[in-house]
Amino acid sequence: MGGPTTDIDALIELMAKLPGLGPRSARRAVLHLIQKRGTQMRPLAEAMGRVAETARECLNCGNIGAGDICDICAAETRATGEICVVEDVADLWAMERAGVFKGRYHVLGGTLSALDAVGPEDLRIPKLIDRIATEGVREVILALSATVDGQTTAHYIADELPDGVTVTSLAQGVPVGGELDYLDDGTITAALKARRAF
Amino acid sequence: MGGPTTDIDALIELMAKLPGLGPRSARRAVLHLIQKRGTQMRPLAEAMGRVAETARECLNCGNIGAGDICDICAAETRATGEICVVEDVADLWAMERAGVFKGRYHVLGGTLSALDAVGPEDLRIPKLIDRIATEGVREVILALSATVDGQTTAHYIADELPDGVTVTSLAQGVPVGGELDYLDDGTITAALKARRAF
Repeated sequence: MGGPTTDIDALIELMAKLPGLGPRSARRAVLHLIQKRGTQMRPLAEAMGRVAETARECLNCGNIGAGDICDICAAETRATGEICVVEDVADLWAMERAGVFKGRYHVLGGTLSALDAVGPEDLRIPKLIDRIATEGVREVILALSATVDGQTTAHYIADELPDGVTVTSLAQGVPVGGELDYLDDGTITAALKARRAF
Repeated sequence: MGGPTTDIDALIELMAKLPGLGPRSARRAVLHLIQKRGTQMRPLAEAMGRVAETARECLNCGNIGAGDICDICAAETRATGEICVVEDVADLWAMERAGVFKGRYHVLGGTLSALDAVGPEDLRIPKLIDRIATEGVREVILALSATVDGQTTAHYIADELPDGVTVTSLAQGVPVGGELDYLDDGTITAALKARRAF
């Protein structure tokens, strides 16, 4: 009763729903914001409101942008012959941070999963098949997780793609800066199998 | 360039400033919000904007509320003879969650600290002295951290208080549910010194 006011309580409850935050860290974050309500809280509320109004999924690739077609699909400088297939937008952003891929993306929106009853029609797979033809795609790079579901999805997509399209996937091996001692057996096995001339 | 849009980037940057969040978890939180922009993001932005406009520090005790005087100071049901002195609003909320204290609070806004150059004039100590007289306070409960700075502050306040006011502090000992094996030496020493008849 004497704790936070109803408005503040409601805010804490909403914050606590964010991934990585719980009730305790939500309280801490809200108190921090209230102490900086001019310099941080108001700008954050405004930025969040703005993104809530403008952000939407690209109708072509599933990336998030401010219009019906995202910046990447709209950019004439991005090669159209290569599509990198990722599970979600976070993976797309990670690829973009690496800054090495100059083609376009296709965001599946998840992986096939028998356990969670996710079938091909729940992912953006039919749209990918469409794009192969309409955009003249020569190579599809499968950048999916090295998990059972990720690899099942990769195999399913590879089977669905028309002949004549090169299908590749990210290499598996030792991460840059990684110490062997900390790697799991599967990674070491994959790295050894894929060894190359030094 | 092809990653998040400028609006989304700005939002991630603001989120990353929250305590407990970094760039990675801010990105994750923002993506989560965008996916639930109707049900979570818009309500969160609105709640945050509302609190940013209304929240302010109580002129009497330093608690955060929606008006010049907080709910606790305004409540006639709260005993006026006892003031519990806490470092910050988070500590006040923690006391309220315990629900055992029925008096009023005084939020210092920190502790005395030689290292950080925090003196008595930087805390809400003069106001506390005022309140002792005007509110007819008989007992001041010092609920400060068991750290060097917290205890220095407690001693300073105890010295400043007028004669005739009872000064107490929270008991130190084994936390409820705590295992001896996991406790530090200082806590065990304090708990042994303050042992009582069983």
